[in-house]
Amino acid sequence: MSTFKNALPASNDILTRDPLPASHKTYISGEIHPEIKVPMRAITLTNDEIVTVYDTSGPYTDPNIEIDVAQGIPAIRKDWIANRGDVEAYEGRIIDPKDNGYKNRTQMETAIAGASSLMRQPIKAKPGHNVTQLHYARQGIVTPEMEFIAIRENQRRDMTRRYLNDPEREARLKGENFGANLLEDITPEFVRKEVAEGRAVIPANVNHPESEPMIIGRNFLVKVNANIGNSATTSSIGEEVEKMVWATRWGADTVMDLSTGQNIHTTRDWILRNAPVPIGTVPIYQALEKVNGVAEDLTWEIFRDTLIEQAEQGVDYFTIHAGVLLRYVPMTAKRVTGIVSRGGSIMAKWCIAHHKENFLYTHFEDICEILKQYDVSFSLGDGLRPGSVADANDEAQISELKTLGELTQIAWKHDVQVIIEGPGHVPMHMIKENMDKQLEYCHEAPFYTLGPLTTDIAPGYDHITSGIGAAMIGWFGTAMLCYVTPKEHLGLPNRDDVKEGLITYKLAAHAADIAKGHPGARSRDDALSQARFEFRWEDQFNLGLDPEKARAFHDETLPRDSAKVAHFCSMCGPKFCSMKISQEVRDYADKQGLSTEDAVNKGMEEMSQTFKNQGSEVYVNVEDITKTGS
Amino acid sequence: MSTFKNALPASNDILTRDPLPASHKTYISGEIHPEIKVPMRAITLTNDEIVTVYDTSGPYTDPNIEIDVAQGIPAIRKDWIANRGDVEAYEGRIIDPKDNGYKNRTQMETAIAGASSLMRQPIKAKPGHNVTQLHYARQGIVTPEMEFIAIRENQRRDMTRRYLNDPEREARLKGENFGANLLEDITPEFVRKEVAEGRAVIPANVNHPESEPMIIGRNFLVKVNANIGNSATTSSIGEEVEKMVWATRWGADTVMDLSTGQNIHTTRDWILRNAPVPIGTVPIYQALEKVNGVAEDLTWEIFRDTLIEQAEQGVDYFTIHAGVLLRYVPMTAKRVTGIVSRGGSIMAKWCIAHHKENFLYTHFEDICEILKQYDVSFSLGDGLRPGSVADANDEAQISELKTLGELTQIAWKHDVQVIIEGPGHVPMHMIKENMDKQLEYCHEAPFYTLGPLTTDIAPGYDHITSGIGAAMIGWFGTAMLCYVTPKEHLGLPNRDDVKEGLITYKLAAHAADIAKGHPGARSRDDALSQARFEFRWEDQFNLGLDPEKARAFHDETLPRDSAKVAHFCSMCGPKFCSMKISQEVRDYADKQGLSTEDAVNKGMEEMSQTFKNQGSEVYVNVEDITKTGS
Repeated sequence: MSTFKNALPASNDILTRDPLPASHKTYISGEIHPEIKVPMRAITLTNDEIVTVYDTSGPYTDPNIEIDVAQGIPAIRKDWIANRGDVEAYEGRIIDPKDNGYKNRTQMETAIAGASSLMRQPIKAKPGHNVTQLHYARQGIVTPEMEFIAIRENQRRDMTRRYLNDPEREARLKGENFGANLLEDITPEFVRKEVAEGRAVIPANVNHPESEPMIIGRNFLVKVNANIGNSATTSSIGEEVEKMVWATRWGADTVMDLSTGQNIHTTRDWILRNAPVPIGTVPIYQALEKVNGVAEDLTWEIFRDTLIEQAEQGVDYFTIHAGVLLRYVPMTAKRVTGIVSRGGSIMAKWCIAHHKENFLYTHFEDICEILKQYDVSFSLGDGLRPGSVADANDEAQISELKTLGELTQIAWKHDVQVIIEGPGHVPMHMIKENMDKQLEYCHEAPFYTLGPLTTDIAPGYDHITSGIGAAMIGWFGTAMLCYVTPKEHLGLPNRDDVKEGLITYKLAAHAADIAKGHPGARSRDDALSQARFEFRWEDQFNLGLDPEKARAFHDETLPRDSAKVAHFCSMCGPKFCSMKISQEVRDYADKQGLSTEDAVNKGMEEMSQTFKNQGSEVYVNVEDITKTGS
Repeated sequence: MSTFKNALPASNDILTRDPLPASHKTYISGEIHPEIKVPMRAITLTNDEIVTVYDTSGPYTDPNIEIDVAQGIPAIRKDWIANRGDVEAYEGRIIDPKDNGYKNRTQMETAIAGASSLMRQPIKAKPGHNVTQLHYARQGIVTPEMEFIAIRENQRRDMTRRYLNDPEREARLKGENFGANLLEDITPEFVRKEVAEGRAVIPANVNHPESEPMIIGRNFLVKVNANIGNSATTSSIGEEVEKMVWATRWGADTVMDLSTGQNIHTTRDWILRNAPVPIGTVPIYQALEKVNGVAEDLTWEIFRDTLIEQAEQGVDYFTIHAGVLLRYVPMTAKRVTGIVSRGGSIMAKWCIAHHKENFLYTHFEDICEILKQYDVSFSLGDGLRPGSVADANDEAQISELKTLGELTQIAWKHDVQVIIEGPGHVPMHMIKENMDKQLEYCHEAPFYTLGPLTTDIAPGYDHITSGIGAAMIGWFGTAMLCYVTPKEHLGLPNRDDVKEGLITYKLAAHAADIAKGHPGARSRDDALSQARFEFRWEDQFNLGLDPEKARAFHDETLPRDSAKVAHFCSMCGPKFCSMKISQEVRDYADKQGLSTEDAVNKGMEEMSQTFKNQGSEVYVNVEDITKTGS
């Protein structure tokens, strides 16, 4: 069969590079490391105020940076890594046709012709060295990555504090953080300490210098991961690169490439060389491809080779299902939905077929030895996560979680960074138990959860069934939320689904930050609400997570430009608008040089008389905008 | 200006009447009242099992019932009401041109020509009588409405229990009900008692006999309200009727008609005569129209006349902003978003202009006298609800809530039913306080909340920002959730938005039922998850809240019919599917006449050998469905 179509490389034309509306990129330099430039998105409001927000979109939204996807984006970390003096370039592993799903080299080379421009010579730790951020942190070293993150997490608090200036309000809205330690100002040293103690992870493979450093930990902003990847049935390299860029545009803090099928090695090269965010993978998927989908044919050697292959390409974190132990498999037999994790089921099948312990578990220290040479982080997979609410928090799930906790300590012994994956499908009342047990069993290693979905009855809306659970578990302490798209359970997400899933998860993560009481988080809400109250429609759109949709929705009923400054919207129409009325009440009080409270308390009859004389009907001079009642 | 366009009556052609896929209507008769017929939707699965679900769609989805919207749907409660012998027909109020927004009768009659076929002679309580369900309940009378509700709430538990039969699972998933009293089997007597004690409300105006009885209370299933209504800028009568039918199709338990502008009286006639669910309104909106939008011109007499007008038409519950007291208004002056409730701002403006106490408060007992003659329930409005997270749970909001609690007791003194409206915008960590205070201050009268929205930063996605809060507060004890559509803050929802909002809120309400541990609630999840696990795609679609979207999403990548029985989906593709694998593991164990656990524990090497011999690769014979890798 022809596979050339699949191998079509990405074209620059398909990338969306326009900055978001009213936005421009700004960079803040470091103090310890003056060479670092931390990107933020500055939104300019119609009243000339500027609101800066966290920006995951990398160089794509900076019109001053030229990008050619066939060359890759700038390698901003290249010098930082080299300057540490502990890595060396080496002759990497030779690509095997099987890496891309081909039987022979000619077949592969024909297929990926024109798509191989992004291969790089790999680097790894010099003998005897360990190049993980955890290792540096434990040595007391504040890396450029750490300072970058400190600046990035603070999101210019000098500017956000402007909105959070009412002591009564701040006291009333004080968050419930469930033991998280949320600093008023994140320092590079705090980042170091959190990494050193395993409570936070900086996914940062030395072979992925294009990545802008970010941190995953419950004492930082809640992050969101987006999964992309072709399945055997669909899509091309170009589409996957575009999806990755698209995902970062809408807020993906990390992206997992879950591609299966042909050309996955080359697709991964293209994604990594163009990715401004850490990239995660599930190496067992590719290993299984190499043995033609026959789970029992998997071996440690094949898996190990795949780890090295992907580590050399620059993958920042690996999902490893090392907690699926032979003795746990039977615990799933009575479940409503058995094992639903792909990796989990592959390993379960392997264990049963060989009647042996999971080789990912028995070779766990061998894996650590590889990962620390590249600084690939573990994402310990929950292969036994529940696939229905009926299976939530059962023996299989909890047993595996305990094992992941044991493995965490082994990884930490090697200074390898660890995050822990979590469910799945969990009804609301059982979500907190997941978080509490994870913190206890896994020694506060960051939790990285899929959803959880709080009901099974809404296929087509599982971004929402899971967004509910995600917001809650984010509040309770999950450090990163793996998004779910509307296509979950039904098909592969397209571009629109990726965006819908991301916005849902960004709002869930933000709701979690607010509930935790993350300093500065609420400032964007307050800025947007002020704009809403003052009928600054443009600002309301532009401060939102999806300015395009907000504007389009508004324009469906009131398309004319004059409506953008109108003191009403189509919901109530011009005849009465509550926002307008309450603003009049306040304005009136101001005009008298009195607070509204004074006006009432002093019982000034003449005040109400003046108000009457001014005319207390609601402003209706809007005939140029819309026709309305007589 | 021409207004005839707005007055266009509804046509039967625009109504969606097809039953949902694989569904038919069944009816269950009463025992105390054999004449009652409680509708349910029976979904027939491909394995011939039948799952019955709660059905709000009324006669529209029963092909055996002929419907002509110009005549209205069958008045199922007509005899029940007449048989109580406590109502009488009377010469109702004469329609005033102002009711429909016209200056003179000729103008109105021209405009609504052809749209007046649904006027009815009103009935009300005979002198000295009180016709509320609360009054009957306190007399110890189990009305047909109450028995109807008991059967309806149980949702054929004999059938749902089939899915909930594993003791370990049921013990593990036991809900957290926060003090709710959830019975295994709802009895008519329990319904009576809950109503008698004010913990539940049956909105059932004697002039709305078309309505199928339903109950709002935290010891019952969580309900969802959908708002419809033209604003001054858009839509016609026909569209509003269609939107109401559409809303009940997708699960609206009640519908609020928030129309403003012209022809609202006639629009209301059309909606009520065709509505199988209770209809709520905010009478102050129409009263304000009658005084040309000049808030200070509102009077008790005009408001009183509007209440009677709408009570005679059959409105089942009125939002009344009687808790917006003069002394609370100044408490909103320092808010980020002031007063955002339309009704609240109208009353605030009136109070300030006149420097007098809110006439809804001072005339509260007069209102009770009217409502008890028709059995209109109070929905005590939260006119001072927060419009931004910054304003959540502030002094204004909480003060008003206390007042609503005082008013509740006054209403109860008159045997008038009461629900309490709640916020608004509230961050997650402050939601429970809302519920706790509402229960305390309002003596367990049912809570009816809008959202709450958990962040302000996602205009265009506020069905989701609020769906998160709605699921949580529903779990904590809210009895009915007022939906929010994606257009919230931006425009008037269209048909698609209404559906999106409803499905979001139905899944939130269901997630709440599960978390509360509502008996039987999880059975639909289990039925769907079983179907998912067994690759019964059709059943998975049909058991979902939106079968059409689920099917459409699936078909985007795998449109052929053969894919509907395929043992994989486009997410993983045919080469490995976790569901398939774990089912194989289970099947294999079964085939050996052993549990999988035995197979492992007995350490049978030959077992794994047999498994190998059978071939442990994943089933891939799918070439007729999709082309895949070599």
